[in-house]
Amino acid sequence: DPALKVFSLNSNPTLAQEIAENIGTELGKCTVTSFSDGEVQINIEESVRGCDVYVIQSTSEPVNQHIMELLIMIDALKRASARSINIVMPYYGYARQDRKARSREPITSKLVANLLQTAGASRVIMLDLHAPQIQGFFDVPIDHLVGVPLLSDYFEEKNFEDVVIVSPDHGGVTRARKMADRLKAPIAIIDKRRPRPNVSEVMNIVGNIEGKTAILIDDIIDTAGTITLAANALIENGAKEVYACCTHPVLSGPAIERIDNSKIKELVVTNTIPLKDEKRIDKITELSVGELISEAITRVHERKSISVLFD
Amino acid sequence: DPALKVFSLNSNPTLAQEIAENIGTELGKCTVTSFSDGEVQINIEESVRGCDVYVIQSTSEPVNQHIMELLIMIDALKRASARSINIVMPYYGYARQDRKARSREPITSKLVANLLQTAGASRVIMLDLHAPQIQGFFDVPIDHLVGVPLLSDYFEEKNFEDVVIVSPDHGGVTRARKMADRLKAPIAIIDKRRPRPNVSEVMNIVGNIEGKTAILIDDIIDTAGTITLAANALIENGAKEVYACCTHPVLSGPAIERIDNSKIKELVVTNTIPLKDEKRIDKITELSVGELISEAITRVHERKSISVLFD
Ligand SMILES: Nc1ncnc2c1ncn2[C@@H]1O[C@H](COP(=O)(O)O)[C@@H](O)[C@H]1O
Ligand SMILES: Nc1ncnc2c1ncn2[C@@H]1O[C@H](COP(=O)(O)O)[C@@H](O)[C@H]1O
Repeated sequence: DPALKVFSLNSNPTLAQEIAENIGTELGKCTVTSFSDGEVQINIEESVRGCDVYVIQSTSEPVNQHIMELLIMIDALKRASARSINIVMPYYGYARQDRKARSREPITSKLVANLLQTAGASRVIMLDLHAPQIQGFFDVPIDHLVGVPLLSDYFEEKNFEDVVIVSPDHGGVTRARKMADRLKAPIAIIDKRRPRPNVSEVMNIVGNIEGKTAILIDDIIDTAGTITLAANALIENGAKEVYACCTHPVLSGPAIERIDNSKIKELVVTNTIPLKDEKRIDKITELSVGELISEAITRVHERKSISVLFD
Repeated sequence: DPALKVFSLNSNPTLAQEIAENIGTELGKCTVTSFSDGEVQINIEESVRGCDVYVIQSTSEPVNQHIMELLIMIDALKRASARSINIVMPYYGYARQDRKARSREPITSKLVANLLQTAGASRVIMLDLHAPQIQGFFDVPIDHLVGVPLLSDYFEEKNFEDVVIVSPDHGGVTRARKMADRLKAPIAIIDKRRPRPNVSEVMNIVGNIEGKTAILIDDIIDTAGTITLAANALIENGAKEVYACCTHPVLSGPAIERIDNSKIKELVVTNTIPLKDEKRIDKITELSVGELISEAITRVHERKSISVLFD
């Protein structure tokens, strides 16, 4: 069988190290730095000829830098005769720019899909895409992993008495349903609506939350406005306590301050985007997707179905 | 005739304004900002349906940000039914990564060419490419403008008595020859060589510079090591005084300090990369390529040959 090699770029070095160890290999030797003028400089320091290469890179902030690193790495691997170039993107940036919501908007998710394929990606492994439709933006195989089991297992161990899984908006109901199935719990939905134009939104809660432990689940938490307003509305409406979780902790701008000041008791996230030191507050628990991704890579390499990982 | 519209992204706002004014139009309305998490957000605020659009953007530092802005703008224009999307790149970043000098290097110049075409560019207008071969990396038409006339005209007005045009390395001799033709001057070449391994380089000067005003010409000045060493070698070898010029003032890292401390009397550059305030020192003169580019755009739009602009 051709050799499997795992390379890390600059977004998730710790996760990449964990993945390589789980697989029982060492990270491929390669330096990814910048020239004096800021241009990306990549040196791959071992042969990849005929190898199946897996490149670990989230397109998290600095997103444009991380995208260009990834594209340039793919170009270098292609020209170095890698047999296949498998991109592992724990977090797929620009996923929210996935349709024209207004006239003359770009569809940057599709652009990035095209760029990855143009550079030479053979396959992309992703986790909890903001919209599953983005899979259709690609013509190469996509393996789509799911973070719900990891997050559910964490909460299962807490043995809460009376739990309800809450989606912070209409878009996330399917995700909440999946977690509820695993925890054998009911669901509720935060149904924001604006009664009249120029009147502030009303947080209406669909479902019974009274006296229960509520677990809010979302795919991305960015500025944390939605999730913290939802948490506070749950408490005001009689929930006993509120936990929150998400796969991708973007946590930009006022996010950390909002979470710290909110009624959220604990926020559980994964390391698809590693937390910077200044974002590591007591309330936030970080779980690793390392095992999930290493199993996926091993199964892909051995041509085994990956659906067992999240059925 | 379909309408011509000029849009500016974030690299060269002043130059873009000058180009629009020369052409007798206003810059297209469009905001190019970032979301809270650093993702590029573009809003085109006027119709471009059926228009011939010209987008002004150098891929200068921050290069990866500028490339992504450009690609996303092209995507938005394409989806908004522009008739043609003409990219004006006064400076083409990653031009020095144009071949595999070592094993497993990327060829990022070619990658960028592919990305621009994948996004939807119909044509690219460029100025003094580091290597003319990069034109062949594209399958769409390239209009390649030349900065030598602009730089030569500036020096012509100085009416120097006894001038020699100097190339700071072997790669730049053709460029030096072009300037020498315009100024009716001879050329010289700095012929760096390392006599034996691990012995420092010797600056050998090919050609007569004794008692003359030397004008060094290069395409890019980046960290300014080459050009300042060359200037000092010219003075040591008897040149009367040394001027220097280039089209693209990258001027990264120690460049400004080196230039300030060197024997260069005046450095003449163009605004393909606008000088940041901290780089505006007395020794540096900035010429504008605005007129050259506006004439090129007008001629392209009117389907006239552009070669008259630099013959
Ligand atoms: N990086 C971003 N940060 C905030 N909003 C974004 C971002 N990218 C896209 N959007 C906007 O988010 C909306 C889509 O989000 P959603 O409805 O959750 O799929 C669109 O209106 C986009 O313009
Ligand atoms: N941004 C950059 N800064 C400095 N050197 C670079 C840069 N990009 C590429 N190079 C290197 O410059 C060399 C090519 O420069 P040249 O010989 O002038 O064409 C190659 O060895 C590249 O690895």
